[in-house]
Amino acid sequence: MDALPPDRATKPVMTRMERVGVVVPFEDKAEPGIGRLVDLTRADMERVNAMILSRTGSDVTMIPEVANHLISSGGKRLRPMLTLATAQLTGYEGAGHVKLAAAVEFMHTATLLHDDVVDESDMRRGKIAARIRWGNEASVLVGDFLLGQAFRMMVEVGSLRALEILSAAACLIAEGEVMQLAAAKNTETNEDEYLAIIRGKTAELFAAACEVGPVIAERPKAEIAACRSYGMNLGIAFQLIDDALDYGGASANLGKNTGDDFREGKITLPIVLSFRRGSDEDRAFFRRTLEEGDIRDGDLEHAVAIMKTCGALEDTVERARHYGAMARDALAIFPQGPMKDALVETVDFCVLRGH
Amino acid sequence: MDALPPDRATKPVMTRMERVGVVVPFEDKAEPGIGRLVDLTRADMERVNAMILSRTGSDVTMIPEVANHLISSGGKRLRPMLTLATAQLTGYEGAGHVKLAAAVEFMHTATLLHDDVVDESDMRRGKIAARIRWGNEASVLVGDFLLGQAFRMMVEVGSLRALEILSAAACLIAEGEVMQLAAAKNTETNEDEYLAIIRGKTAELFAAACEVGPVIAERPKAEIAACRSYGMNLGIAFQLIDDALDYGGASANLGKNTGDDFREGKITLPIVLSFRRGSDEDRAFFRRTLEEGDIRDGDLEHAVAIMKTCGALEDTVERARHYGAMARDALAIFPQGPMKDALVETVDFCVLRGH
Repeated sequence: MDALPPDRATKPVMTRMERVGVVVPFEDKAEPGIGRLVDLTRADMERVNAMILSRTGSDVTMIPEVANHLISSGGKRLRPMLTLATAQLTGYEGAGHVKLAAAVEFMHTATLLHDDVVDESDMRRGKIAARIRWGNEASVLVGDFLLGQAFRMMVEVGSLRALEILSAAACLIAEGEVMQLAAAKNTETNEDEYLAIIRGKTAELFAAACEVGPVIAERPKAEIAACRSYGMNLGIAFQLIDDALDYGGASANLGKNTGDDFREGKITLPIVLSFRRGSDEDRAFFRRTLEEGDIRDGDLEHAVAIMKTCGALEDTVERARHYGAMARDALAIFPQGPMKDALVETVDFCVLRGH
Repeated sequence: MDALPPDRATKPVMTRMERVGVVVPFEDKAEPGIGRLVDLTRADMERVNAMILSRTGSDVTMIPEVANHLISSGGKRLRPMLTLATAQLTGYEGAGHVKLAAAVEFMHTATLLHDDVVDESDMRRGKIAARIRWGNEASVLVGDFLLGQAFRMMVEVGSLRALEILSAAACLIAEGEVMQLAAAKNTETNEDEYLAIIRGKTAELFAAACEVGPVIAERPKAEIAACRSYGMNLGIAFQLIDDALDYGGASANLGKNTGDDFREGKITLPIVLSFRRGSDEDRAFFRRTLEEGDIRDGDLEHAVAIMKTCGALEDTVERARHYGAMARDALAIFPQGPMKDALVETVDFCVLRGH
């Protein structure tokens, strides 16, 4: 749902790890990107990637097959990088952040596998979805296995507080997904409801990923709260931009990775705003396409035209900028330094990709 | 998959709890049953049931709806009772066993919800399956929510060792289910493979449920190992009998809750034994029905006739008796007492229901 397809990311340069099946793209430093974050977490991420590979192992061959199909298909691994980054930012010196970061990525991967079953998706990260190749059953069960492995790794780290944060996140993610299910095809959904959904399904894991760093570093409450707030607001901004990009972003430039949400009848902010700001005719159009699922040639383009007229895409990006600003401000209590700069740059990257 | 349909259990007497939607059946003491176990854990089980009700609560109304549909439909709650029983057996005096027992039941319920999606079941515990009423999506996501809540409760108890045991069980259950998926419709499956499957999908949770009791009681290794062994062997016996009962049990008496495994092409021990012991003609029959899924009128009866001829059902019950004996012997290190008696009686009940 929120992985960057290759053509939206800056051109990835592959490292040595790719040859063993794990893709670690990093960014061109000339453009706004997550290049600094990638650089500063590179050594730890190699350990995370090795951990991910080893923990998908099972004598039941279908498990590594399905898990690696998704895991090796890339994605930026932004969430585990955030755990490593906030642990580093707050001076953590142990080794537990590597397992927690791998656990965060497994929770994310499990969610993707289960989402595909829920959304009946055919594609994921530019590859055929696991559920199409191995069936819904395998996607459900391998997701469960990865969730179990995530908890095992957390337990190995031994921080009850980190376990509490990540297990609460697991519940809140599922709640957000169920809310999204209940709101599907419902054009009456308002902005608050939409926000509650994306907080749950996306931002809670970003928040938890960032919070566990200072938690295992045993830092004071204020630092833990700051990292959590950074993650939460970054996650909201990230999802808002993702939802804008599904209609081509602020420039409304319909490329080949657009229109999925529209075809699934997913109610995202560009739709919420357009439905409220549009004419009766526009509302009738959204009811036909999103509620009744009666989608004809040219309908996606027409939806985008309505969005352009009422400024729905620009304003979705504007909202993301607002949450991005909150994420940046949350870091204010930390002294200047390369990791803080990298985290600020990550916010800029997330928001700017909306253009 | 392994819940007793009402007509197979001894006649349940309902308690006050039923009026608020939770069914707590207990057994007629005149027959072999789990009556003593129910009696000895009654006070704690009321707290477990209250905990279960409160932890399915969510502002997202679909979550309690789906969860309570399954939870209120009964089942004996044998697994949480085992956690309470082994905690009591080993002299535990805290309150953590209640949350662990509720967590065990949530793990089981999550598995049932996901199983229904995997098996494409229409019915569960005599009620329409949640996935039929609310869709596969809701079953997957509410299962994920319950799994998350299970981990939250475990974390609240604060025993890292119990967390380790139950998170490992979560992985092993998923592994067992994936193995079962890979073995589905494969008549070449042998007894060892079948055993590995039921160890994972059923017995691991019984073992973990029993192991965490002495763990939170901080008892010596030998007692922890004894309780784990009791649970593991009881779980294997339980599933063996369940699989025999799907063909009418040792008496091969086809009632209304039989034939599900046959229709799903599930390879259980009665099939494994029949396929090996039968004639070429019998094997051709099983290939047609189970592998090709070409099932005609009278085929279930014919399968049972083959099983009777070669003694497959009696021997499945005989195998269960073997694991039941191991479960009983595992308890030998504990002094005589009412809870030990109740646990022994539970083994007898599980094995005897195969007749």
